[in-house]
Amino acid sequence: MVEGRMEKARPTRIRLGMVGGGRDAFIGAVHRMAARLDDHYELVAGAFSSTAEKSLASAVDLGIAADRAYADFRDMAEQEAAREDGIEAVSIVTPNHLHYAVASAFLEQGIHVICDKPMTASLEDAKSLVAKASAAKALFVLTHNYTGYPMIRQARSMIAEGLLGDIRVVQVEYAQDWLATNLEDSGQKQADWRTDPERSGLGGCIGDIGTHAFNLADFVTGLELESLCADIQSFVEGRQLDDNANVMLRYKGGARGMLWASQVASGNENALRLRIWQ
Amino acid sequence: MVEGRMEKARPTRIRLGMVGGGRDAFIGAVHRMAARLDDHYELVAGAFSSTAEKSLASAVDLGIAADRAYADFRDMAEQEAAREDGIEAVSIVTPNHLHYAVASAFLEQGIHVICDKPMTASLEDAKSLVAKASAAKALFVLTHNYTGYPMIRQARSMIAEGLLGDIRVVQVEYAQDWLATNLEDSGQKQADWRTDPERSGLGGCIGDIGTHAFNLADFVTGLELESLCADIQSFVEGRQLDDNANVMLRYKGGARGMLWASQVASGNENALRLRIWQ
Amino acid sequence: MVEGRMEKARPTRIRLGMVGGGRDAFIGAVHRMAARLDDHYELVAGAFSSTAEKSLASAVDLGIAADRAYADFRDMAEQEAAREDGIEAVSIVTPNHLHYAVASAFLEQGIHVICDKPMTASLEDAKSLVAKASAAKALFVLTHNYTGYPMIRQARSMIAEGLLGDIRVVQVEYAQDWLATNLEDSGQKQADWRTDPERSGLGGCIGDIGTHAFNLADFVTGLELESLCADIQSFVEGRQLDDNANVMLRYKGGARGMLWASQVASGNENALRLRIWQ
Amino acid sequence: MVEGRMEKARPTRIRLGMVGGGRDAFIGAVHRMAARLDDHYELVAGAFSSTAEKSLASAVDLGIAADRAYADFRDMAEQEAAREDGIEAVSIVTPNHLHYAVASAFLEQGIHVICDKPMTASLEDAKSLVAKASAAKALFVLTHNYTGYPMIRQARSMIAEGLLGDIRVVQVEYAQDWLATNLEDSGQKQADWRTDPERSGLGGCIGDIGTHAFNLADFVTGLELESLCADIQSFVEGRQLDDNANVMLRYKGGARGMLWASQVASGNENALRLRIWQ
Repeated sequence: MVEGRMEKARPTRIRLGMVGGGRDAFIGAVHRMAARLDDHYELVAGAFSSTAEKSLASAVDLGIAADRAYADFRDMAEQEAAREDGIEAVSIVTPNHLHYAVASAFLEQGIHVICDKPMTASLEDAKSLVAKASAAKALFVLTHNYTGYPMIRQARSMIAEGLLGDIRVVQVEYAQDWLATNLEDSGQKQADWRTDPERSGLGGCIGDIGTHAFNLADFVTGLELESLCADIQSFVEGRQLDDNANVMLRYKGGARGMLWASQVASGNENALRLRIWQ
Repeated sequence: MVEGRMEKARPTRIRLGMVGGGRDAFIGAVHRMAARLDDHYELVAGAFSSTAEKSLASAVDLGIAADRAYADFRDMAEQEAAREDGIEAVSIVTPNHLHYAVASAFLEQGIHVICDKPMTASLEDAKSLVAKASAAKALFVLTHNYTGYPMIRQARSMIAEGLLGDIRVVQVEYAQDWLATNLEDSGQKQADWRTDPERSGLGGCIGDIGTHAFNLADFVTGLELESLCADIQSFVEGRQLDDNANVMLRYKGGARGMLWASQVASGNENALRLRIWQ
Repeated sequence: MVEGRMEKARPTRIRLGMVGGGRDAFIGAVHRMAARLDDHYELVAGAFSSTAEKSLASAVDLGIAADRAYADFRDMAEQEAAREDGIEAVSIVTPNHLHYAVASAFLEQGIHVICDKPMTASLEDAKSLVAKASAAKALFVLTHNYTGYPMIRQARSMIAEGLLGDIRVVQVEYAQDWLATNLEDSGQKQADWRTDPERSGLGGCIGDIGTHAFNLADFVTGLELESLCADIQSFVEGRQLDDNANVMLRYKGGARGMLWASQVASGNENALRLRIWQ
Repeated sequence: MVEGRMEKARPTRIRLGMVGGGRDAFIGAVHRMAARLDDHYELVAGAFSSTAEKSLASAVDLGIAADRAYADFRDMAEQEAAREDGIEAVSIVTPNHLHYAVASAFLEQGIHVICDKPMTASLEDAKSLVAKASAAKALFVLTHNYTGYPMIRQARSMIAEGLLGDIRVVQVEYAQDWLATNLEDSGQKQADWRTDPERSGLGGCIGDIGTHAFNLADFVTGLELESLCADIQSFVEGRQLDDNANVMLRYKGGARGMLWASQVASGNENALRLRIWQ
């Protein structure tokens, strides 16, 4: 049955803004579709691009008023906070290196933040965001989107209810193939910033998709990591960031696991696979 | 890439109404989610139930104004047609026996109709709707929803481009298991009307899901049926409509096929499978 | 566990002969390997070819004495029957049109017959073999080889024990692709005789592999056919026998089924698939 | 086509002996079936058990002369070496701890040895066998049986021919579930010796099946290991040997891999999986 809590009465939708996600972006449209699917949000403002004309053009595409299309996310945070009908939450879908600055700007205005992973490029920045969110009594929400699938929820429930007993073995992998060649040299936008240490922020493959794999194992098992041993590679010549990662995991309580993330595994468009044993 | 034509500028969304799809319904919420996903529609009115209180309660759930919650679809057609901001299209998600009457009411008011399959309970009624749509210069659209999947579109393109050559063999099946027992006796709402000749209108399994399988083979191959030979069964004791159907197909041009539809095939929640050979 | 009854003591192995299965043959070697795997048989004689030199050469390959390599199966039947150490059973692995004559020759000498399917080219011939076997108190055994697989035996046991209840639906298919083009025109030996009405004896695809599919459904379900409706095709231009067959099945007791056999279904080397539902 | 080189003329079969593989054994019968399938061998002697009656009973089962059923493998090596019709090769299918002693006894008599993996319990013993084989000009053959499958051969050929280019990533796993509980406490024979450090010789899971996984990656890729990092576990309480192993691999030339072997992965009877990427 598809009818459910998401169809129940809400007096109004949450007023949502977005930073990033303009005309040529990849993931912004996915966030917008997801928000519409739930029907809890209404997108009313955005800094869709740091170029004013591009941000405005994207706003027009999306039926957003021109005076709420911003070129600068700091302006957006200030002006939206000042409006009576200003946004209540912002969705950050920029390249990784901007996550910290954008999240800070909105948290400092008391606006809830929905941010793509990876959270920040350093542990220090991540802790700083936690402090800012706490000070502002605002939510900081990280979009580990795969946790939303029904089968993932069911797996998590089964383990939480003890149906599998104490977990012994975790095998998780996330394989892609789009970076099997040096696509970044072609100027392809996604490859360009994701393989650039300045903008990717936190490693290559391990930060881009290894984080999803790790999160998923955590989320489903409820286990806490104790230690890990990783062997990180960069196979494509000239690439500065990792494109393949092998990791062995030791969880508190004795479970052991392996994590493999790769962006050079031909034949895998986007293959996320999680196996767990008692 | 998910960005695309669906994100392009539209001055306004299409004003949509719905008949059926109230609180306990199954498929209405799916239609609403699909409409929101595209972002071309705004649901503004509905006859969600023939009981006024239920229709109103569903409207409240959905954030629809009380004065646009109707108990009678004929009233809705008339009143919406009379409003300046009345609906431009209606989505019909009622049990099958109502398709004809509801579609007629809206077409007669010049309102476009989006209707669930099966179209009507008789060929005569179907032809009548075609005439009404034509007279009103309104669209009558049948929701064969499976045609929308990207892989189906790709398969269709490949065949249309001649990549498979002339089609020889078609094997299509749609297997479910939810009616493997006489669920209708439990009062379950979906089983109740779908196994009732009065309300299901056009056969049981063959009308409910066989239509999807047949349509999909048609849609993907572009072939036109010449003749068929069917063996229709009702396995569950006391059931008045078919719950399993075996069909042999002969297409114009020489292709041959088989279609199997079943609602008693345990282990199949909703298994639609299409195979085509040159 | 692989240890079992087949490893238990037997004072001597069964003395086996073979008709067909010479150097260029396809299925004879499979029979020989199967016989060795069981270790109940010892191959001691053969009419491996109707050409004397070829039969002898094959005998040499197989370590069989030259005086027991025959060119004529009738000579073989007579001479082996006359020897004190003559064969006890013969394995017939010839093209289909010879099954009847060869089986007759050995049964008439009181020698047990192991024969490939299809049994004969006509029902009359089949009945005649039954009579001959009965008169000779010899066994006539048809090699429906797929019945030997452990999973098939398990499926059969489960149904025989009533674990599935009364069978309602049978879906069986056997798809190959090797005759998707007119391979017979290239002189390929297997295609040559299998598509030739004279030597194939009993239809093309339906006799060659449809028989296996039908037998398997029978064997596993224990059901008896009541009637069938078939649509048989020959897709490849110039082919005289069928290369695709669609069949609807009605079993005694009410079960219904579909059978699809094809030798033109590209991508299927040898895909036999059986599904059965209560 | 199954006809092939294995069916070609051989003047005589190789005279084969066996150590281990008596009535209650697991793998001996598999070796015997494989030898018969090829038809290059004839089993003529054996020390099937260290208990004389058991060895004799097994010989009777297998149609072997009573005077060639031995209780002691050293007696067998000496007596068979002294016979004119003595065995030419011996197949060793004992528990692991006996591999070295049995292989030594036969090599010292100049008899070829076919031995199950793992080769020995120590590197020193393995080197000693190499020296003994060399001195005797006899073959020492290790049965990494999975290397014989056609698909494995094809994969190896494809890589050897350079179809995949330089290998980057190897993912290999071998998962079983039969030791998910402490089966050894039930007295089950296979579990008993395989989890006993004295008789298993070389670790538990890693020696029993990890060796197969490692060998297969080696065999197919042709790569040579440079270093590894392993995390070995024993999950079942009271078990003295490992039952799960996570390993990261670094090959010469830059390829990297992961190997997972487990005997506690429920749902896996015997799941060997190898994936390789350029």
